[in-house]
Amino acid sequence: MLGLKLPTDPRWVNIVEKNISDILTDHAYCEQKAASYAISLITKYPDIPEIVEQMTALAQEELEHFQMVHAIIIKRGLCLGRESKDPYVHDLMKFIKRGGNDAMVLVDRLLIAAMIEARSCERFRVLSENINDKELASFYRDLMASEAKHYTLFLKLARKYGKGVDVEKRWKEFLAKEAEIMKEYGKKVTVHG
Amino acid sequence: MLGLKLPTDPRWVNIVEKNISDILTDHAYCEQKAASYAISLITKYPDIPEIVEQMTALAQEELEHFQMVHAIIIKRGLCLGRESKDPYVHDLMKFIKRGGNDAMVLVDRLLIAAMIEARSCERFRVLSENINDKELASFYRDLMASEAKHYTLFLKLARKYGKGVDVEKRWKEFLAKEAEIMKEYGKKVTVHG
Repeated sequence: MLGLKLPTDPRWVNIVEKNISDILTDHAYCEQKAASYAISLITKYPDIPEIVEQMTALAQEELEHFQMVHAIIIKRGLCLGRESKDPYVHDLMKFIKRGGNDAMVLVDRLLIAAMIEARSCERFRVLSENINDKELASFYRDLMASEAKHYTLFLKLARKYGKGVDVEKRWKEFLAKEAEIMKEYGKKVTVHG
Repeated sequence: MLGLKLPTDPRWVNIVEKNISDILTDHAYCEQKAASYAISLITKYPDIPEIVEQMTALAQEELEHFQMVHAIIIKRGLCLGRESKDPYVHDLMKFIKRGGNDAMVLVDRLLIAAMIEARSCERFRVLSENINDKELASFYRDLMASEAKHYTLFLKLARKYGKGVDVEKRWKEFLAKEAEIMKEYGKKVTVHG
């Protein structure tokens, strides 16, 4: 359904399970970064009311998820650690076309978000289906549905506002590129690691 | 109650009233920047759960206010314009001590936020009491109360976590500095202008 070309090897969960504290911290910052990205889209497209409205609602939802992850961290006697870079997102960002026309840049900014939501959704599914920790299995099953909704939202906005851009073609390029990038991942204790 | 040393000349409202579109846009971005600042404090102090929790809730509330201002903008057939710099905040930021110890930097980061909330609160009061537009008068009266609560929150956090810092003395310094800066303002169609 998400169109991802390279499924995550479920053995990634074995690595994650050994360090719940690290995956929770990384996940909390994924939510924070998603909120900040949504806010940045508001400041970039203030003239498109639907983008402003949807991104405001999205930023609020991401902050709500951040709050939920932080509550789990505290309940388990852990502490939110420091933010660290997300090399997967960094690799993906390089694929964004610079110097294209405004509609192409808008489409790329929306598709990269759709891509990250799609992969996060898949990772949450793999986690929820394979992790032994019951609380987290149920938590990630619930979040999975939200990520899928966000993925759909970003794709919908790209199709609606990417005037003159062949969004389907560009999305296929994104999916192919992401699969290529993903070959190097699936070994670290992070949501996209 | 807010301790501000220089009240805003109510004639500022006459300037504002001539350009409702501009003040609404500037106000919307004040809320967005407040949300982004709260998020930045989460990433700077992940080891203080109360700061993480309070700043997450605050960022959500600021986004809710952003949403309310944006709804008014759309209802009036206007459009959220581009973000512009806030010279008042820029002037205030220069007062933050660099190179102090961690507690001093934390206190300054919290007090500058308290300061901006206090002045925003005062400006919203002046607006609500002097503006002829009934909808906006009532809107700004409601928001005034929120800003006052945020001001109290930041001061409370500074007193609680500013270990070894004379927070009262520093707050007085902030109030004096802000009054000095404010002499140059009160002439523009922005919340802090």
